[in-house]
Amino acid sequence: MKGRAPLRAAQYVGDRTVRTERLDSLEPVQRQVQIKVAYTGLCGTDLHIVHGNMDGRVERPLVFGHEMSGTVAATGPDVTEFSPGDRVTVMPLDWDGTCPACVAGHQHLCHHLNFIGIDSPGSLQELWTVPEHVVVRLPDDVSLRHAALVEPVAVAAHDVRRSELSAGDRVVVLGGGPIGVLIATVARHAGAEVYVSEVDPTRLMQAAALGFRTLNPAQDDVEATVTEWTNGAGADVVFEVSGAAAAVEAATGLAKVRGTIVVVAIHPTPRPVDLQRVFWRELRILGARVYERQDFDEAVRLIADGVIPADDLITDVVPLDATARAFTRLEAGTAMKMLVAVEEGAAS
Amino acid sequence: MKGRAPLRAAQYVGDRTVRTERLDSLEPVQRQVQIKVAYTGLCGTDLHIVHGNMDGRVERPLVFGHEMSGTVAATGPDVTEFSPGDRVTVMPLDWDGTCPACVAGHQHLCHHLNFIGIDSPGSLQELWTVPEHVVVRLPDDVSLRHAALVEPVAVAAHDVRRSELSAGDRVVVLGGGPIGVLIATVARHAGAEVYVSEVDPTRLMQAAALGFRTLNPAQDDVEATVTEWTNGAGADVVFEVSGAAAAVEAATGLAKVRGTIVVVAIHPTPRPVDLQRVFWRELRILGARVYERQDFDEAVRLIADGVIPADDLITDVVPLDATARAFTRLEAGTAMKMLVAVEEGAAS
Repeated sequence: MKGRAPLRAAQYVGDRTVRTERLDSLEPVQRQVQIKVAYTGLCGTDLHIVHGNMDGRVERPLVFGHEMSGTVAATGPDVTEFSPGDRVTVMPLDWDGTCPACVAGHQHLCHHLNFIGIDSPGSLQELWTVPEHVVVRLPDDVSLRHAALVEPVAVAAHDVRRSELSAGDRVVVLGGGPIGVLIATVARHAGAEVYVSEVDPTRLMQAAALGFRTLNPAQDDVEATVTEWTNGAGADVVFEVSGAAAAVEAATGLAKVRGTIVVVAIHPTPRPVDLQRVFWRELRILGARVYERQDFDEAVRLIADGVIPADDLITDVVPLDATARAFTRLEAGTAMKMLVAVEEGAAS
Repeated sequence: MKGRAPLRAAQYVGDRTVRTERLDSLEPVQRQVQIKVAYTGLCGTDLHIVHGNMDGRVERPLVFGHEMSGTVAATGPDVTEFSPGDRVTVMPLDWDGTCPACVAGHQHLCHHLNFIGIDSPGSLQELWTVPEHVVVRLPDDVSLRHAALVEPVAVAAHDVRRSELSAGDRVVVLGGGPIGVLIATVARHAGAEVYVSEVDPTRLMQAAALGFRTLNPAQDDVEATVTEWTNGAGADVVFEVSGAAAAVEAATGLAKVRGTIVVVAIHPTPRPVDLQRVFWRELRILGARVYERQDFDEAVRLIADGVIPADDLITDVVPLDATARAFTRLEAGTAMKMLVAVEEGAAS
């Protein structure tokens, strides 16, 4: 067994505090791969962790981070698919394979899912050791910088696939943060026409700059606009990505007869839902969580094909030592996607 | 044009009042059929009308009633499918055929649906004149008494079809009134195993007598029971038929990963829904309203085949003059299905 070299890692230590510290690295054992992390994206879930909202779930200190790219540094025994130097990302889901959800084929919804980076150590460390089966190879023409977006793009690909939208559908995305804009992008690529509804002026401008129709529910009559846009029918699909109670109440008013509402956002408390409208229009409300392997593969393709406006979405790249400060900017909501360059001088 | 003969009719006149009065009959005109009504079932919607909850929608006085059976008395010009003496029921939906829902093939959800018996005169009258296209022929082996159940059975058939349940599925029906028991019956006939959850002791006994597993949420831990029954998975399908806010909150806790919740009941105000659970388990919530023609045809078959325990469900048959008093009993919730024998001395 090799000795353990110290590495730098950003940890949530509790009390709204993130510290960059030196830890021992874990050498890869049986069927494990050690990855030299290039970039780690920060997301809303990370913000929830740092705010202490998930203290009931996460062990502290926690090396967090689950949107990443890197290169294989070393492989443990019996690793057959990867070699040092391979450019990779990680689909950070580890399931037990035996619970009722796994047996039914829904491993991503495993009753005992280990979400790597939340329930076990994540990628805000220079060397990250994970099971071989969660490692995903990157094509040569995808930069490591762009590849840090694969995980959130996979979320969007999953949400759009779950909605079963068709080319020509009229779609409303409630919430114009990173996931909302990615859903809008994937839906547009699938042939839908898309409105993004968002209250934050900066995000509205970003969505408009990406070519989407925009609405501000604080100013516009969203239902009247959508009704007119759809010639009185209502939207084919509504994605609820905001997490706001008001958006949930609005969503049922926007969907057409037999339309679909996809619940993407996290709603920590039960929300009032107009079930009378659900009944009256025979609406369909679908929960959509994380992704399956086909969504991850689709996300890699969408980035490789240039469908995802990665350079527009990545508004900030900060060094690992600045992770704590990065959250201040993330809280302000002005950054779209913020990457931490985990490897010093990480190349794009 | 023929003269108008007086007939007896039960009308909602407002102020929680039902009166049986003599009205002029309407002779059938172009493509209309006049039906001699044998039986009319009373349902929860009728109770809502009499309670004044639908005064914003219904004109007064209103001859209500929409679950019925009878024989054709006369036909207007250009009626081709029916002749006097034919035994019939009515699918009481009249759509405009031009709204976005109709154009999309969902006529039963027409934006301007005329629900006959609510939005226009219904079947609590001795002679009822309706458009030919809403009349449905009855097979000879279905009694007129049983045929008065076709409409509510069609609701249940629609709800079960919408759920897409499969043989072997484990199903929970929240609410053991007439529609709940009919859904349980249709689901069982489709091969499902069924629990009926209900707080009223009389209804619980009725459901148990029909062979269903029963739960009383006022006494039992419904979620624990369903979890154990399904080996930790959760129910495949949950039907929310109670209209109770507590049932909505419970429903999301009962469904398995990727399970389905069908919203059948009317919820007059928005209800708190655990969207976190909807997201976490990727649940599917479906509204289900009225029926389509195939559900009506299926309902006729289910009654003809003896699948529906019609004699057990029809707990009361009262004469037309007693309609007002019948609502007192309907309010008490002790009757399962109450029929009004509209035709004096209506035979079964």
